[in-house]
Amino acid sequence: MAVDLESTPELGQFYEDVQRHHMTPLWTAAGIWNPVHRAIPYLWHRDEYWPLCQRSGELVPIERGGERRVLAFLNPGLPPEMYGATHTLWVAVQYLQPGEIAPAHRHSAGAIRFILQGDKAFTNVNGDKCIMERGDLVLTPAWVWHDHGHEGKEPMIWMDGLDLPFARALGMVFFEPYPQHRQPVLGENLTEKRHHIGQLRPALAEPDPTGTSPLMNYKWAQAEEALHAMSPEDASPYDDLALEYINPFTGGSVLPTMTCWIQRLRPGVHTRPRRQMTSKVFHVFEGHGSSIIDGQRFEWHKGDFFCVPTWCRHEHENDSSADAVLFSVQDTPIFQKLGLYRESDE
Amino acid sequence: MAVDLESTPELGQFYEDVQRHHMTPLWTAAGIWNPVHRAIPYLWHRDEYWPLCQRSGELVPIERGGERRVLAFLNPGLPPEMYGATHTLWVAVQYLQPGEIAPAHRHSAGAIRFILQGDKAFTNVNGDKCIMERGDLVLTPAWVWHDHGHEGKEPMIWMDGLDLPFARALGMVFFEPYPQHRQPVLGENLTEKRHHIGQLRPALAEPDPTGTSPLMNYKWAQAEEALHAMSPEDASPYDDLALEYINPFTGGSVLPTMTCWIQRLRPGVHTRPRRQMTSKVFHVFEGHGSSIIDGQRFEWHKGDFFCVPTWCRHEHENDSSADAVLFSVQDTPIFQKLGLYRESDE
Amino acid sequence: MAVDLESTPELGQFYEDVQRHHMTPLWTAAGIWNPVHRAIPYLWHRDEYWPLCQRSGELVPIERGGERRVLAFLNPGLPPEMYGATHTLWVAVQYLQPGEIAPAHRHSAGAIRFILQGDKAFTNVNGDKCIMERGDLVLTPAWVWHDHGHEGKEPMIWMDGLDLPFARALGMVFFEPYPQHRQPVLGENLTEKRHHIGQLRPALAEPDPTGTSPLMNYKWAQAEEALHAMSPEDASPYDDLALEYINPFTGGSVLPTMTCWIQRLRPGVHTRPRRQMTSKVFHVFEGHGSSIIDGQRFEWHKGDFFCVPTWCRHEHENDSSADAVLFSVQDTPIFQKLGLYRESDE
Amino acid sequence: MAVDLESTPELGQFYEDVQRHHMTPLWTAAGIWNPVHRAIPYLWHRDEYWPLCQRSGELVPIERGGERRVLAFLNPGLPPEMYGATHTLWVAVQYLQPGEIAPAHRHSAGAIRFILQGDKAFTNVNGDKCIMERGDLVLTPAWVWHDHGHEGKEPMIWMDGLDLPFARALGMVFFEPYPQHRQPVLGENLTEKRHHIGQLRPALAEPDPTGTSPLMNYKWAQAEEALHAMSPEDASPYDDLALEYINPFTGGSVLPTMTCWIQRLRPGVHTRPRRQMTSKVFHVFEGHGSSIIDGQRFEWHKGDFFCVPTWCRHEHENDSSADAVLFSVQDTPIFQKLGLYRESDE
Repeated sequence: MAVDLESTPELGQFYEDVQRHHMTPLWTAAGIWNPVHRAIPYLWHRDEYWPLCQRSGELVPIERGGERRVLAFLNPGLPPEMYGATHTLWVAVQYLQPGEIAPAHRHSAGAIRFILQGDKAFTNVNGDKCIMERGDLVLTPAWVWHDHGHEGKEPMIWMDGLDLPFARALGMVFFEPYPQHRQPVLGENLTEKRHHIGQLRPALAEPDPTGTSPLMNYKWAQAEEALHAMSPEDASPYDDLALEYINPFTGGSVLPTMTCWIQRLRPGVHTRPRRQMTSKVFHVFEGHGSSIIDGQRFEWHKGDFFCVPTWCRHEHENDSSADAVLFSVQDTPIFQKLGLYRESDE
Repeated sequence: MAVDLESTPELGQFYEDVQRHHMTPLWTAAGIWNPVHRAIPYLWHRDEYWPLCQRSGELVPIERGGERRVLAFLNPGLPPEMYGATHTLWVAVQYLQPGEIAPAHRHSAGAIRFILQGDKAFTNVNGDKCIMERGDLVLTPAWVWHDHGHEGKEPMIWMDGLDLPFARALGMVFFEPYPQHRQPVLGENLTEKRHHIGQLRPALAEPDPTGTSPLMNYKWAQAEEALHAMSPEDASPYDDLALEYINPFTGGSVLPTMTCWIQRLRPGVHTRPRRQMTSKVFHVFEGHGSSIIDGQRFEWHKGDFFCVPTWCRHEHENDSSADAVLFSVQDTPIFQKLGLYRESDE
Repeated sequence: MAVDLESTPELGQFYEDVQRHHMTPLWTAAGIWNPVHRAIPYLWHRDEYWPLCQRSGELVPIERGGERRVLAFLNPGLPPEMYGATHTLWVAVQYLQPGEIAPAHRHSAGAIRFILQGDKAFTNVNGDKCIMERGDLVLTPAWVWHDHGHEGKEPMIWMDGLDLPFARALGMVFFEPYPQHRQPVLGENLTEKRHHIGQLRPALAEPDPTGTSPLMNYKWAQAEEALHAMSPEDASPYDDLALEYINPFTGGSVLPTMTCWIQRLRPGVHTRPRRQMTSKVFHVFEGHGSSIIDGQRFEWHKGDFFCVPTWCRHEHENDSSADAVLFSVQDTPIFQKLGLYRESDE
Repeated sequence: MAVDLESTPELGQFYEDVQRHHMTPLWTAAGIWNPVHRAIPYLWHRDEYWPLCQRSGELVPIERGGERRVLAFLNPGLPPEMYGATHTLWVAVQYLQPGEIAPAHRHSAGAIRFILQGDKAFTNVNGDKCIMERGDLVLTPAWVWHDHGHEGKEPMIWMDGLDLPFARALGMVFFEPYPQHRQPVLGENLTEKRHHIGQLRPALAEPDPTGTSPLMNYKWAQAEEALHAMSPEDASPYDDLALEYINPFTGGSVLPTMTCWIQRLRPGVHTRPRRQMTSKVFHVFEGHGSSIIDGQRFEWHKGDFFCVPTWCRHEHENDSSADAVLFSVQDTPIFQKLGLYRESDE
């Protein structure tokens, strides 16, 4: 749509004056109808990031190396200072050694954790000591105090997912350290005990007006049970057997801007391709398979991460003889709540 | 507000003409600002209704005595033809002998069943064979095919709750027998298996637009676990430790017009009195205690039923040394959805 | 579904015992799946009710004859003590002479007024003196103080619509007289001035949580303009050119339980028949035509009232050469909000 | 939060390896808890941009200089390629000479136009020829065909507001030219005629699921009337007499991501300062005054534009003896719908 007018001294002076007054002509704005940056499909191999985590454990003692030993995945299509695995999502792996503590703080971006390895670590969310085991999903909603500790014997690795690039793009980032190193513990798995039976709610309880879930720890045992209770009639042609983690008080997503899924691709499944106005980052929890994203095939194995940026045509294959299980974090609620969500089979 | 005008021939003729044209003056309508009928607080003793159930089992073979061996509780303040335990709620006990079948049908009123005694009976809800055991809550939503059967060895007794007086008052009752005696069984506890883990939802699933729950069988084991996971901070001054059964897809009530609660009154608890724009029928599931309703004390024991009509001041006491557990069905959603709900401590 | 068992002494004793304990068997409940009462389609002629209004004006001085000179339409299918034009709706005509006052009070049932004749009367709603002219719709929401007065020279007649039979069926009726005869006037048409331009809202304003409209006086001038701005593409096959009065803050109905419509039947229109889970009372504001309701034709002329009870098949005809304009009050929000609304072309 | 670890060869190699695998350590991410860019308060003077518009009219014939003669305001704190007056909002002035046409197209970003000068231009929105006059607000919702033309005799200037930086940040921009230069006209001010009386809605009409208003042209005459009907009790301490343009079908904002306000600052008013999680761009429609934004005073006069970026403390003053009238576009719906909105008096 941009046009080059014949260059004249008057036009040159005009452009200069426009710029001096902090304005710009639309007709010279060549890229205006393109996204500012363009995230690309990408896969991070377990064989590559896992050793880096371990090396960080050796090289970067947590008491000296910042408060959290976190390595973030950067989408190669985005500028590094966006810190995005997609336009909206920060995704990282966090590595905690036995006995280490990641000090208490809070921030305006909400976070999810999905545990990849280890046990006996915990996240203290507002006093609720959420015990972390492989497959658990732990929430730390926006502006809620949280700190991590580790009482086990083996290193702990989990996935972090935050809506940080989105929040930063909106000019909306707050961060505050807790006055002490750690906050007091009120009990263990408190919200899990109170709310894991989703079909009964304390009559006094009111849903949070932001839509944030009251349940902080979604245990793997239940996700696994629900996953295996699914029957063929639950299968989506695009996602096979997929479950959305929900806020038990509303049926909505676990956090206002991000939703999490766990899905099972059965042996032999090849899903139907689709584009969606949403971006996703997948973690391969079990099994192996491949995804074709915008025409490029990505083979994935247990432990890998890969992303599907907004509007990329994507489909999944499981050619193995065992189930593949994918965990994902998605920014779908942003698009749905703003009336912007759409999808296409083309 | 009604007034007696001095009687004159002209006025007499006027009243006659008004009546003849199917009209009425407001100033002679003495009772217009009163409810049409006035339900009263009442208690039905187990010692009285239980033997009647047993006698009905002997006297009324189900193949001859109507399709369902049901004895309904009638509020003494309401005319019998309203069939109301309160203005809005039909509550009854249903008695099924081993081997008996209550044939398939559907109706526009939604129903809940709460199991008082027995096991191995079932309700087939649209093909889902919901196994019924003491303490289970089984739904048969409006206009859904259902039939009951009994494969156990002991008589089965459960509570029925329907919004039938409400539906009839609105002129809105439909009933249809199923073409066959029983409908086919697709599987056992199907919705229970798929949806009992309320915090994960099949990604394909959409909430029913009427608000009806997708889960047909709320098992006692889970209600019991949730009840005992409650802590003092969940206690309401009016209801002590109360849980609402919810639609796991929305967080709303299990049926559009009725909600169900299970609540635990701890030893020594005396709740704060309150009036509410809602009516309730309670079943004493465990323990004993008493309730003061509009100034009248009702002592209740395990197995009893009692009602709290709309706007009756009520409070509960547990002076025993053990928990008392009350199940209740309430018409609260009607008042809340229509903006009519209110409450008062006076 | 009810059955007659062979009469035996044991059965007789059983029935007696059941009744004594305030219970009833389902198998003897012959009418249980029918509505309690059955409203029928009916038409009240202007030529009949209008003279009665005038006679009431002579015979019943308002200071002696109750506080309001109101004649209500009673559905011949319902018992008179229900005071229903349909199962849910009280509809009446109110007659006020110049200089008369109907004293201030409030009640839990919400009310609409639609002005049939006269001007310079007013309803004072919470201090807002709503000037009433032919064709205006004036609201007095639930539990809001209101009184009427008349500063004109000719008698005033308007239609009253209340959800009174519904409220009474729910056991939910409150009434309170104002401490004085009249309440103070804060200004004229205050909410009309502030909110009649529905597409701009004071930024501070919050919608009422019950859904009640903030606008108390919907002037005829605007209804008329909107009605005539409708184009053929707005025509519904069932209702021709129909407008719903809405709450400008939410787009919902004007009161939580009742909605009002104004509709124009163009010359030659014959609408498609339909049954709906809703009841309606129509006032013929302009023109003449007929409606076929459950197979019975009702010819209507300017000033008549007629009702369409729930689930009655109905269609409208305008065989004249001029528009017919119908105002109606409907209980649709009750059914829609409770997930009970349905409709059928059969 | 970032830390400098002592530099060692191992650490250097580690950082190199991390980067090579498209990852980054959190502990070196110095700016991660800051917004990506920081918009600053700024004011664009009418005396500066208006002559530039006129020069563009001379130098850039629309048939050669791109399809639209638009000069956009660029926030000096943001990189020019973001095209943002704030982080989320593109705001520009568009200049059309008599007889010129801006060809038909559509895009995924929604747009508002607010008319600053001229008459007899029009925007054709999906066939609805919206006549544009000073003070009118014209919508072109996302993905709706639109083109502009000008049948008057004087140049036309209007303000454009789009959520373009927001859409581009989400990677969500679509653009499509219409097959012809212009689209057919179905009529004039069609939606204005049908929906400008916000309190009556065609009974057939359904709100758009995205929340977009059905009304495309909000005429100044009505905004002015509503503005002057406001009384002191409508005054907000932060905004004085402010009106929000609303979707008459829902009471929500006119577009899913942007809301528009018109507000009147009375003589002598000095509003209370506040920070909000929202950004706004103001146009001074009438009068003069000043705003203090993050401690800096901006004097504004008729025709000026100024912005208040997210979380900037701001207050307004009108020290003149006449009303000042401000139009503004705001991104508030984004923050409110995502549960992110907050405000502070500090």
